[in-house]
Amino acid sequence: MTHVDRAPIGIGMIGYAFMGMAHSQGWRNAKSFFDPKLEPRLVALGGRDRAKAEEMARRFDWQSVETDWRALIARDDVGLVDICTPGDMHAEIAIAALAEGKHVLCEKPLANSVDEAEEMVKAAEQARADGVRAMVGFTYRRVPALALARRLVRDGRIGTLRHVRAQYLQDWLTDPAAPYSWRLDATRAGSGALGDIGAHVIDLTQFLTDEHITGVNAALDTFVPERPLPGGDGTGQVTVDDAAVFLGRFSGGAMATFEATRYATGRKNAIRIELNGTEGSLAFDFEDMNTLWFYDASAPDETQGFTRILVTEPTHPYLGAWWPPGHVLGYEHGFSHQAADLLTSIAEGTDPEPSFADGLRVQRVVAAVQASAEAGSAWVDVAGTNADTAGTTWEVA
Amino acid sequence: MTHVDRAPIGIGMIGYAFMGMAHSQGWRNAKSFFDPKLEPRLVALGGRDRAKAEEMARRFDWQSVETDWRALIARDDVGLVDICTPGDMHAEIAIAALAEGKHVLCEKPLANSVDEAEEMVKAAEQARADGVRAMVGFTYRRVPALALARRLVRDGRIGTLRHVRAQYLQDWLTDPAAPYSWRLDATRAGSGALGDIGAHVIDLTQFLTDEHITGVNAALDTFVPERPLPGGDGTGQVTVDDAAVFLGRFSGGAMATFEATRYATGRKNAIRIELNGTEGSLAFDFEDMNTLWFYDASAPDETQGFTRILVTEPTHPYLGAWWPPGHVLGYEHGFSHQAADLLTSIAEGTDPEPSFADGLRVQRVVAAVQASAEAGSAWVDVAGTNADTAGTTWEVA
Amino acid sequence: MTHVDRAPIGIGMIGYAFMGMAHSQGWRNAKSFFDPKLEPRLVALGGRDRAKAEEMARRFDWQSVETDWRALIARDDVGLVDICTPGDMHAEIAIAALAEGKHVLCEKPLANSVDEAEEMVKAAEQARADGVRAMVGFTYRRVPALALARRLVRDGRIGTLRHVRAQYLQDWLTDPAAPYSWRLDATRAGSGALGDIGAHVIDLTQFLTDEHITGVNAALDTFVPERPLPGGDGTGQVTVDDAAVFLGRFSGGAMATFEATRYATGRKNAIRIELNGTEGSLAFDFEDMNTLWFYDASAPDETQGFTRILVTEPTHPYLGAWWPPGHVLGYEHGFSHQAADLLTSIAEGTDPEPSFADGLRVQRVVAAVQASAEAGSAWVDVAGTNADTAGTTWEVA
Amino acid sequence: MTHVDRAPIGIGMIGYAFMGMAHSQGWRNAKSFFDPKLEPRLVALGGRDRAKAEEMARRFDWQSVETDWRALIARDDVGLVDICTPGDMHAEIAIAALAEGKHVLCEKPLANSVDEAEEMVKAAEQARADGVRAMVGFTYRRVPALALARRLVRDGRIGTLRHVRAQYLQDWLTDPAAPYSWRLDATRAGSGALGDIGAHVIDLTQFLTDEHITGVNAALDTFVPERPLPGGDGTGQVTVDDAAVFLGRFSGGAMATFEATRYATGRKNAIRIELNGTEGSLAFDFEDMNTLWFYDASAPDETQGFTRILVTEPTHPYLGAWWPPGHVLGYEHGFSHQAADLLTSIAEGTDPEPSFADGLRVQRVVAAVQASAEAGSAWVDVAGTNADTAGTTWEVA
Repeated sequence: MTHVDRAPIGIGMIGYAFMGMAHSQGWRNAKSFFDPKLEPRLVALGGRDRAKAEEMARRFDWQSVETDWRALIARDDVGLVDICTPGDMHAEIAIAALAEGKHVLCEKPLANSVDEAEEMVKAAEQARADGVRAMVGFTYRRVPALALARRLVRDGRIGTLRHVRAQYLQDWLTDPAAPYSWRLDATRAGSGALGDIGAHVIDLTQFLTDEHITGVNAALDTFVPERPLPGGDGTGQVTVDDAAVFLGRFSGGAMATFEATRYATGRKNAIRIELNGTEGSLAFDFEDMNTLWFYDASAPDETQGFTRILVTEPTHPYLGAWWPPGHVLGYEHGFSHQAADLLTSIAEGTDPEPSFADGLRVQRVVAAVQASAEAGSAWVDVAGTNADTAGTTWEVA
Repeated sequence: MTHVDRAPIGIGMIGYAFMGMAHSQGWRNAKSFFDPKLEPRLVALGGRDRAKAEEMARRFDWQSVETDWRALIARDDVGLVDICTPGDMHAEIAIAALAEGKHVLCEKPLANSVDEAEEMVKAAEQARADGVRAMVGFTYRRVPALALARRLVRDGRIGTLRHVRAQYLQDWLTDPAAPYSWRLDATRAGSGALGDIGAHVIDLTQFLTDEHITGVNAALDTFVPERPLPGGDGTGQVTVDDAAVFLGRFSGGAMATFEATRYATGRKNAIRIELNGTEGSLAFDFEDMNTLWFYDASAPDETQGFTRILVTEPTHPYLGAWWPPGHVLGYEHGFSHQAADLLTSIAEGTDPEPSFADGLRVQRVVAAVQASAEAGSAWVDVAGTNADTAGTTWEVA
Repeated sequence: MTHVDRAPIGIGMIGYAFMGMAHSQGWRNAKSFFDPKLEPRLVALGGRDRAKAEEMARRFDWQSVETDWRALIARDDVGLVDICTPGDMHAEIAIAALAEGKHVLCEKPLANSVDEAEEMVKAAEQARADGVRAMVGFTYRRVPALALARRLVRDGRIGTLRHVRAQYLQDWLTDPAAPYSWRLDATRAGSGALGDIGAHVIDLTQFLTDEHITGVNAALDTFVPERPLPGGDGTGQVTVDDAAVFLGRFSGGAMATFEATRYATGRKNAIRIELNGTEGSLAFDFEDMNTLWFYDASAPDETQGFTRILVTEPTHPYLGAWWPPGHVLGYEHGFSHQAADLLTSIAEGTDPEPSFADGLRVQRVVAAVQASAEAGSAWVDVAGTNADTAGTTWEVA
Repeated sequence: MTHVDRAPIGIGMIGYAFMGMAHSQGWRNAKSFFDPKLEPRLVALGGRDRAKAEEMARRFDWQSVETDWRALIARDDVGLVDICTPGDMHAEIAIAALAEGKHVLCEKPLANSVDEAEEMVKAAEQARADGVRAMVGFTYRRVPALALARRLVRDGRIGTLRHVRAQYLQDWLTDPAAPYSWRLDATRAGSGALGDIGAHVIDLTQFLTDEHITGVNAALDTFVPERPLPGGDGTGQVTVDDAAVFLGRFSGGAMATFEATRYATGRKNAIRIELNGTEGSLAFDFEDMNTLWFYDASAPDETQGFTRILVTEPTHPYLGAWWPPGHVLGYEHGFSHQAADLLTSIAEGTDPEPSFADGLRVQRVVAAVQASAEAGSAWVDVAGTNADTAGTTWEVA
């Protein structure tokens, strides 16, 4: 630890709810634990409700508050715009911020439609020519166990992929009396379990395998079509899916099953992914997020088995910055890793991952799932997968 | 334990390989531990290779050997015919045995086609009029943890079913050099992973939920199309599926994902079933077969969680006959439970479960999966599910 | 599988309760699955209550019943005497049987005192000169996962031993209303949790490590001093320990903690053993008996972890005789392995393990524990550990 | 979230290594997530090496640096002194700070001797009269799963305690080539595994059970007596224990086994505690810190088992301040809970827990363990346990 002067960069964040808290924590932890070459300054917090925004700013030491996002992105002291709003505002803000020459971190899903996502990718590509960076917030890629899984796949430790099974299971809608929210309104959220949590496992499996999903057979369902409004006065119409299931094919030929639901009683945030290859297998469950299970088919017969790797060693991704072995990390650490990696990319002039193009790829799978569900679960190709497949590379820290 | 005289019943078993050993063990354990009202006598073992059959008979104390199955079923001292042959002989033997007035236990899958299965159901119904019983060997229903799961579902402990996820994962074909066998030949085995192991999870999920699968979207694949013949001379053509994945709907509206594969590296005999209902959930993995996980959403918030029930208490299904709590059972115990239950059904004049009709139901789902896979994964209804749904009941001991 | 004629050996078993059932199962399974060179014949079952013994004989196909154990051991057709009585009769029967030239399998603990055990060892040594074999029934040595653990230790996979932690946890006395039985009477059972279940983990840890326990600090307690008699009339005095805890040293310097209790609510038959060495660790819990956890400190840093070995592969001890991978075994299989190994030892003229001397070693540790507890937990050396240590060898099949 | 003005309190922290980072994170997270009535300001960081201290201050936004701890505690803007130094400085700093009227948070172990700890308790009692608060940093009490365990014990959910087994297992000294550090020097660290990590499980078990350890039989060992100095020049003498094992009795009569070691290969930070009571049991392992296992013996027989409680619900201790269910916490969160609770205690004028007296109680057990080990593992009473037992109460948030 030697004394250094870091160039500062002003962060302007829009949104102060759940994601706003996670991102605030990410920015300051990135500085404290990773010491990136650009030092983040929390200069402006954007939110429509000034009182709430100011309260949030006080708690997380944001230096100022803006109630108009256009004012926020226009500020000279804001170098990076962090978008934590619902999905229906992502495209407009991101495109405007990039046009202002601000780096952008945009929460997932990238947008509420493929069209919007394509516009965003275009804007990101234009900005890139001027050294402006754009990243989409699939933070689970930076859970150390999953980053390690990615490294093991890339190192050939599981061989040729045969099977993917991926589930994102929650249960907060199991009770029909659970209240209505914007997440159940298609005009705000785009989709339900599919876009909110299914998008994560779509991204993660493409990331982990370095392959694409080329087509799907899908079914969506809404088990409880209306729910009480929070105020207690009347009900709101649920216009999104409660649950999504689909079969998929990966570009290398592997067979996949996917599931995203808010009705898996007892599963709170179970991101469960298993990959089976010719040389080994990997298994993960976010509810036990510091653990990666690895089966090495090249080990001696007698001692083969799934190894429970406690991913807290200094040699594991991101862990060198934290605590001694066995002192486990939590959910929010992914946001710190994300912030640190983005700041390093900006400082070094490299493309951060996941890119807006990665976000678009997820969006196209989401769209294919929706199209298949509408077509009686018929097979639907994922747009652009032939062209995109070649040359894709994702880097893991 | 008081002294009793039990009426004897002669068992004639056809087949002496893996299943023959498991069934032999089942018959004698049924007598020793469950003391059913009919006492099984191992009178005749049938097999084409006399030397092998005699060796097997010596080891398991079968009283005699027959090399012609027709001779075996015709014997006066044989009251029950136990069919452990490959699937292509099931229909012929079973129908002939029933016609001889012999009770029949037939290994799963019931047959290699829906047509054959329908013939067998017809034969079983005719024989039933004369008090002759027929049962199909889906033994996993009698793993105590699964029998307990069935009881909890029936008691309403998980409420309305929302999700089913079911997998039967093995890995013995992962290596492309694994040798050819009759199980890879469609003319002998009917199908591959789908019929051999997928059939088990189709039956189990229908059994556990007391519902039917009404339709599917499916994909099948054969990753390694030819394999070395055991002798070392040339290769055999793999004409069955290596892996099957499908989406399904249950009659009550639940969404389901299914998978059966012989390529899940590291999974040896992983029958994994999870049911999510509005009031609770159940989870099971055969590799830890003495355990059932139960989530009770009606428990106090503070202590809700998946309870790891070690299914070895005297109050649990079948356990009263075995060892003290914590002294776990193994794979073969299901065969003892099956034998004991069948003998009790015959003695009491009740219909044993699973019936040939249950076996036909599985066959129809298998057929729908194959039809869907051939039709580009299009949705295919399962034949007869409307008519059959009402009034189905499966009893658990 | 070729046809062979095996020389027969008549088994005479004394005792027909829990252990009698387990041993009956062991003898016939040994023949069926392991096909040892001596083929066991179940010629005589001994028990004081003729009706109960005959009922048991009917169920397990014992050919005859004896109500006098002296008559049983004197029979010409009995070549091997299997002693399944309470501990207070072990010495007398075993010594008499050996004097008759009968091979002996004696349930554990070998005896109720060190003196008796020494007499038995002497008798066994004398008989050995005439080719008569004696074995004590610590069956858990033959749980495949523990036999594998032994092999890994012997192969140096965990290096120099540093720590042993061993627990045998049950909970059937937690309820103060649980009834009195002979197991709570010191004159019948010798000791309580210590001798009944503690003896198992004493033997297992000495077996697994190939070392001796050289001394202990111990405490015993009886939480519930009297209990209702089964008939409902009055109470019985509990004269044995309910629970035992002790510290121990192994001959190689490792530190150990031991615990045996019948008051560990929720633990049904939890034999939990963990060994930590300089190169690796092993962990086991009988409630998940098909699994062995192995940590290999020589593996690459990145993928180190405890490997969950599902001990069901043909390369694992005893598994070649049973089912395909993943088709797990249960409690009683240890009795089959024990019977098969003993028959093979007799046939081949080798010394079976564990020997009566091994049983004596356990007895001496039990005695040291009792002495320490009586001396206010002061350190007590285990008798004979210096002399015995050198040259001990235990073989694993 | 309504806007509020919180009274500020200046924090002066001494020490900037591992613990300094954890405490820094604790103070700012306490403010951000718990919004206590006193708002912490990070006014001064103390450390002898100015450059290192300044670097740490930059990263964690400490406003200034002091290289003399006396200067730091004398500052008017410091209201609370947070002591993160090695144990040999705790007493001097804490007593001086309390004399200055500063609230004190002191890392564990409270001191390196009972004498020092008694002085500190006296100082804390005197300061208390003036409304000055003192707390010792046994942060693991504030892992939500353990705080929940405490609540369940207090609610009578496990009944009368019978057994405690507690282990703190690490493996960073397994390799004899691991370098020397101050933690291996008795003059700096006081003791080795015993005081560093054993102290945690001593405190935790007394906290969880609301009982005291009344006496012990103990053994200590140092497996590797000298180790290479970090610079590479020569070796350092290891003057502390590598491992400690002891038997203990709790004030209510329960039997306990304890173990603390740095040689448990593969166990990284395994704080494993199991409590067995007449009505239930609890089990915990820090390596899976978001989980508490609870066995409720009052549940229906059929569904009894250990329930895996994922301690992330809003009704669980501390969780309301964090993320949605299933979004797990990590190691450092305990420090945030500790900071928040201490600030609330100061604001509300209540006594924070654990007190210096609690720290002294741990110290006395540590001293008894050392005395027993020196006396050949003879039984040693824990000082003051008779007087202290009555009326002890620990509160859980």
